[in-house]
Formats: sequence, C-alpha cells, structure tokens
Amino acid sequence: MSKEKPLILLTNDDGYKAPGIRHLVEVARKFGDVLLVGPMKGQSGMSHAVTLHEPIRLKKISEEPGLRVYACSGTPADCVKIALNQILDVKPDLLLSGINHGSNSSVSLFYSGTVAAAVEGCMNSIPSIAFSVDNHSIDADFGLAMHYAEPVIREALKYGLPDITCLNINFPDIPKDDCKGIRVCRQTRGVWKEEFEHRVDPQGRDYYWLTGFFSNEEPNETDTDEFLIQQNYAAIVPIKVDVTDYDAISVIGEWKLDN
Amino acid sequence: MSKEKPLILLTNDDGYKAPGIRHLVEVARKFGDVLLVGPMKGQSGMSHAVTLHEPIRLKKISEEPGLRVYACSGTPADCVKIALNQILDVKPDLLLSGINHGSNSSVSLFYSGTVAAAVEGCMNSIPSIAFSVDNHSIDADFGLAMHYAEPVIREALKYGLPDITCLNINFPDIPKDDCKGIRVCRQTRGVWKEEFEHRVDPQGRDYYWLTGFFSNEEPNETDTDEFLIQQNYAAIVPIKVDVTDYDAISVIGEWKLDN
Repeated sequence: MSKEKPLILLTNDDGYKAPGIRHLVEVARKFGDVLLVGPMKGQSGMSHAVTLHEPIRLKKISEEPGLRVYACSGTPADCVKIALNQILDVKPDLLLSGINHGSNSSVSLFYSGTVAAAVEGCMNSIPSIAFSVDNHSIDADFGLAMHYAEPVIREALKYGLPDITCLNINFPDIPKDDCKGIRVCRQTRGVWKEEFEHRVDPQGRDYYWLTGFFSNEEPNETDTDEFLIQQNYAAIVPIKVDVTDYDAISVIGEWKLDN
Repeated sequence: MSKEKPLILLTNDDGYKAPGIRHLVEVARKFGDVLLVGPMKGQSGMSHAVTLHEPIRLKKISEEPGLRVYACSGTPADCVKIALNQILDVKPDLLLSGINHGSNSSVSLFYSGTVAAAVEGCMNSIPSIAFSVDNHSIDADFGLAMHYAEPVIREALKYGLPDITCLNINFPDIPKDDCKGIRVCRQTRGVWKEEFEHRVDPQGRDYYWLTGFFSNEEPNETDTDEFLIQQNYAAIVPIKVDVTDYDAISVIGEWKLDN
C-alpha cells in the first residue's frame, strides 16, 4: 500500500483527552496523517506494563481527514501493540508519545508509561520519541515542547533513528523564550528517596501513599539530562533497547558457578 | 547496627505464596536472614509500574527465626520500595527476585515485574538478581534454578555486582541433569508478534486478549540468552540501569534543532 503522507502514531500515558497529547497532535499534523491511540484513563507510573488478565477494549472516538482517534482500555504499551496489530496494516513512519504532564528525566524513565510506549515502538522498528514537560498539572505550558517537537519530528522523518534506539526528550517548565536551547546528553544517575507517607484509616489499619523526592546522585555532571534541565535546556537522551551491560559479561564470567 | 548474618530481601511478581519464591526462600536461608515482601496477588506483566493513585497495604504474614514474610498490595517495585523504606532500617546485602514462573529472556525483561524488582534494588545500590524458569505453570520444576541459585548467591555475596548493574538469569524448562551449564551472555534481539486475539462479547461488542508469540530476530547468534536457553544452558544477562545509547549521542547531536 502506498502512502502519500507520513503516517504518525501518537500515544501517551495521561489518556487520549489530555492536553499534552492534543498539543502534540497539532504539531504532528503538519507532517503527516495522525493515528492517536491513547489510554481511556490516566496510566501514569505504569511503565512497560501489559494487560494479561483482562480483555482489552478499543473504542473509535473520532475520524476526520488526517486524524483518527481511538481510546484503549489498556496501558500505553497495549495502545502501541493494538494500534500496530489491529488498526494499521502498514507500519507507521514515526511514533510520538506524550507530551507527558510531568518529567521523565533520569531514572524516572523506568516508571514512565510515556517512555515505555516509545520503547515498544522501537522494538517494532519504528522511530519512536517520548516528550515530557516538568509540570504535572493539567494546565502545563506546552509552548516550549511544541516549539522543539517540530524540528525533532522533521529530522526524525528525514534521518530515522539508529537501530534499536529511541529518544526520551524532557523540557523544563519555563516559557519558550527562557530556554537556552536543546542538547543531546546521557541519563542522570539518581534515585527516589523517602518514598512513603504512612497513615491510619478510620478502622485503625495502616496504609501508605507512594510519595518521596528525586535525589540526583551526580548533580555537578554537566552532560546529564537533570543538569541541563536545571540550567533551562531541553534534554534529549537516546535510549538503547538493549540493556545488556557488556562490560560486566567478563566480570560475572569469572564467578565460580559450576558446582 | 551490626548484622551477624547477611540480610537478603526477596520479592517476585507471582505473589508471596507462589512456589517459585518459596523455593528461592529455601536456598536463600542457607546464606542469611530472609525478608520476603511479595505482592498479595499475581502481578505478571506489570513491568516497573508503581502505585500512584491508590493507597498501599502491607500485611505481616509470618515471622520465625531467619524468615519474615510480608504481603504488599502493590506491584513488585512497590514491594521493594516499601521493604526498604518502611520495614528495614539497614540496607539488605542482596535482593533476589523470583523464581519467576515463566521466561524473562530477551525483550520479555521489559514487561517483567520480576526483573523490574531487581532494577529497583540496583537503583538503591543493592546487588540484585532476578531468576526465571521457562515454564508458566504452578507446577514448574525449580530444581535446576535452585541448583544454580546457590553458587550465584554465594558469589554475589562475596564479590557484589558492578556499579548500577543487576542480573537477569533465565533457566530452560528441563531437569537439572539435562542442563549443559550456565553462561553469561547478552540480551537477544527480538519482538512479540501477532499479539491479539479478537473476540465479540454476548452484547456484540469487540474485545481483545493480549497473546502472540516471541520472534527471535537473531536466532543464530550464539552469545545471546535465547540461543543458550534453546541449547539447554542457563543464561545470565547483566543489565545496566543506565539505558543511554552513548553511540547515538553524537548522531542525534548532528540534527538541526535550533529553529
């Protein structure tokens, strides 16, 4: 089947109605035909989860020239899978995930449904890019992200991405004009700390809310995404969908394991 | 606080009652005091999801010398977090996840709650190891996994693991005596294909079950976990908790992004 325009698949983890993905639709439509398959409800923190134990529903929300919108009951990874397997009969030229309401920099990417959707696209040999803004609110300002999404999409369609590599792009929560530029960098080393708030319910039973704060374990390293974002840059981390620690193979190979 | 014996934290994604983790308890107790914090219910395919939108419950199940067991209402990653933040006041010497009922080789590791728990431990600077057997049934044979878990635990306690590295160990579904040995190797390149079964409910509405098969995209590469498992080896893949594609930084750095 020949395609006149590029076909761009969009998803997210905040749900198909979220302002972030609606802003991304605006930019993506300048470049091609858009298929949006987003979760019916918010799926924040769902990482690369897939729905194994209940059936998945898929609902067509709207169709107009250049834009089809579906809602899926599953996770962001489910959205990508069902788009590729049940809706499309050709592979998309590009997958865009987001724009997420909230940062997915550093190790937060491991918890992120937005980034996982890009990883899922990448596994399926589709150039895939996750976008996130460091502001959780429904009213987050997406102006900066939209400003850079345009050249990013243009270049990704032109050059593609390296084999088994996708992009995790994070934007500081600042007006477009305050941003110093966009840089390609590495994942910051960090960890979430003091993560629970303990409460007692009216029946006297304990419960816990996941909370905590992000601790940057290398705050002075200038080539990391957290450092750059703190300095008012947008940060692109190329992610490899091969997590093998090649240097460690020989180290662990020295262990005495044949009892 | 001084510790007489190593402290070993165990978790999984099949639930705290699963045979796999009970077998791992048996082996781990030979080396130290065990704290088991497992999900209350099965959490297969939950990847690195965390519970953000509902409270988490934690229930003490049992306590005897050398073994404490808790059940947590959350995901495997939640189990690790709550163990470190609400139960323990010292860091464990080792985290073991599994033994999973089902393979987590190749890209299946991205969907795996078992592997995510090890990644979470690793982020918290704990040597962390995930174990999985290529058999989903409740009656899976854990003899081979238990055979190798013993020297793996011994060597991990002796040498630790490289910085920000954890291990993903997969066992073929064969009797111990049929196994040719254990090898350290890399993640196989692959993808899940034809992933949905479409059905229609009694009300005439469509629904979908996630299904499909794993496609090995490099079936002849002898240094990959899938190849080795097919050849009746146990396979250890060291995983790095930094997913940056360092080679891609300069490639993407060539893009024209400053509009």
